[in-house]
Amino acid sequence: MKKINIGLLGMGNIGTGTYKTLEMNRKQITENTGLELAITKILEKDVARKRDVTVSPEQFTQEPDAVLRDPGIDIIIELLGGIEPATSFMLTAMENGKHVVTANKAAVAANYEKLTDAAKANHVLFRFEASVGGGIPILNALTTALLANEYEEILGILNGTTNYILTKMAEDGRPYEDVLREAQEKGFAEADPTADVEGHDVANKLSILISLVFGKRVPPQEIPTEGITGVTMRDIEKAAADGGKIKLIATARRTGDGLEYHVKPVFVRGDHPLAGVNNEFNAIFVKGNAVDQLMFYGKGAGALPTGSAVMGDVIEIARAIAK
Amino acid sequence: MKKINIGLLGMGNIGTGTYKTLEMNRKQITENTGLELAITKILEKDVARKRDVTVSPEQFTQEPDAVLRDPGIDIIIELLGGIEPATSFMLTAMENGKHVVTANKAAVAANYEKLTDAAKANHVLFRFEASVGGGIPILNALTTALLANEYEEILGILNGTTNYILTKMAEDGRPYEDVLREAQEKGFAEADPTADVEGHDVANKLSILISLVFGKRVPPQEIPTEGITGVTMRDIEKAAADGGKIKLIATARRTGDGLEYHVKPVFVRGDHPLAGVNNEFNAIFVKGNAVDQLMFYGKGAGALPTGSAVMGDVIEIARAIAK
Repeated sequence: MKKINIGLLGMGNIGTGTYKTLEMNRKQITENTGLELAITKILEKDVARKRDVTVSPEQFTQEPDAVLRDPGIDIIIELLGGIEPATSFMLTAMENGKHVVTANKAAVAANYEKLTDAAKANHVLFRFEASVGGGIPILNALTTALLANEYEEILGILNGTTNYILTKMAEDGRPYEDVLREAQEKGFAEADPTADVEGHDVANKLSILISLVFGKRVPPQEIPTEGITGVTMRDIEKAAADGGKIKLIATARRTGDGLEYHVKPVFVRGDHPLAGVNNEFNAIFVKGNAVDQLMFYGKGAGALPTGSAVMGDVIEIARAIAK
Repeated sequence: MKKINIGLLGMGNIGTGTYKTLEMNRKQITENTGLELAITKILEKDVARKRDVTVSPEQFTQEPDAVLRDPGIDIIIELLGGIEPATSFMLTAMENGKHVVTANKAAVAANYEKLTDAAKANHVLFRFEASVGGGIPILNALTTALLANEYEEILGILNGTTNYILTKMAEDGRPYEDVLREAQEKGFAEADPTADVEGHDVANKLSILISLVFGKRVPPQEIPTEGITGVTMRDIEKAAADGGKIKLIATARRTGDGLEYHVKPVFVRGDHPLAGVNNEFNAIFVKGNAVDQLMFYGKGAGALPTGSAVMGDVIEIARAIAK
């Protein structure tokens, strides 16, 4: 049986979830692919951290090149987060003939062409399903099964923290600051929630979607972006009175002569499928000129859902290598 | 540019939708695949029928072998419906080295092993995305991007006619017979609605899902199946009073020592994502041990949504041929 060796960059929460996804489903991944997948080397400083998986200490290294240039490694999974050194590491991996999988929306949004061009130039595959919508296999659907469509509109609830806050404001009648504080205490929101609540996280994801779906490159900082810090209880109550909800929506829509795009809090009618997407869930609504309305719903974050998307990309690449 | 020739079996409603999907999105299909796709021959008696597409009369034939054995044809799309002669035609096509795409749930459910075995033996691809959930790309997701999961549960609203009837009964407070009659007048339900309202259509789809997802062959007639003819206004009202809805649900669920499966009207809690799937829409809810909850929502029928799924399969096969 062909063996595929994988190098992992970063073993925090998502890295551990990815490792665990492979460990717990190894039997059926092997059955389904006819391949033996193994994470052989891990770039990670924190060797001592308690993790819910079995990793032998000699798998860890603190030397990037020991993973990126290891001739025995076929696929690199990048889960460091942040633009650098993640982007440089991915480029080095590609130059060394390695396929690359990442969940890193900041790096992909910032360096989309650089990364996709390098993959082409080095004849390797580059996949980033987990960077948009976490476990929801939206990028795969948009670039395979739905390709017979012209996409007219994409609307996304792409950030679990802000969707959780807006849901609780509406359900419990409590203002933004209250719910944010509770979310921080429960670990649903970060101590510094700026990237989430100001919409920057969503802008990164929308930039990736626009590049992939509409073939147009719009850097995240050029997407008009408004977060949820200005959403008042009055807005929430007015929306409810009008039979709908306020949601933080990423929009990309074809117009007569181009493309309209923005991230902002939007009134969603109660009968729109996105109105039923609550708490930490994410969803992507797509309108295609043949398929009409579609919606994909699921967990946009979390160790195992994200691990599912990362390993899904790895499996697709492994199958392509096997062929 | 490489040209891929397609033979079409049947040009009724779905066949016309498939032809139209290719016609209206030809430019971007060519851009995305680098391939020129052409439907060159069509097996169809009704040449005179008014269709909203341009087909030249010499494309039509009434001789199956003129399509199935044409050495210039790479892919056969089967849209005749019914178990025979559709199954025999697909087998003949495969024996003649042609890849096969179908939307025919009855034929796939009845002859799953025969068709998948023949595809393997003849080294051709066999795809049937449109046979379950119409335009929703669920089979593709379950067999590619989600493969790193063990599937725990699949729940589907897989029939638009019955979902429409149940929605109207709940919204308008009108009994089954009333709503069925209206649906028939509007063309949403067939003159003989048996296959829909008795659940047989859904059982076919569930049989396909079980084969594909759980690797277990359960012919549709062995799936315990109950339709919606026995659903009373009292059931609907009781569900509403309990904060939920009655939906016709196809269920396949792993149990300790095996698999539980059935098609029947089920109480769905108001906070379950399937509760918001109304009118003619379909949805498939999936629970995987890594990805957790996912839902895929869209149009389960109709000429263009089904055409989107059929052409999605054709594009995937064309890409594989090109490689």
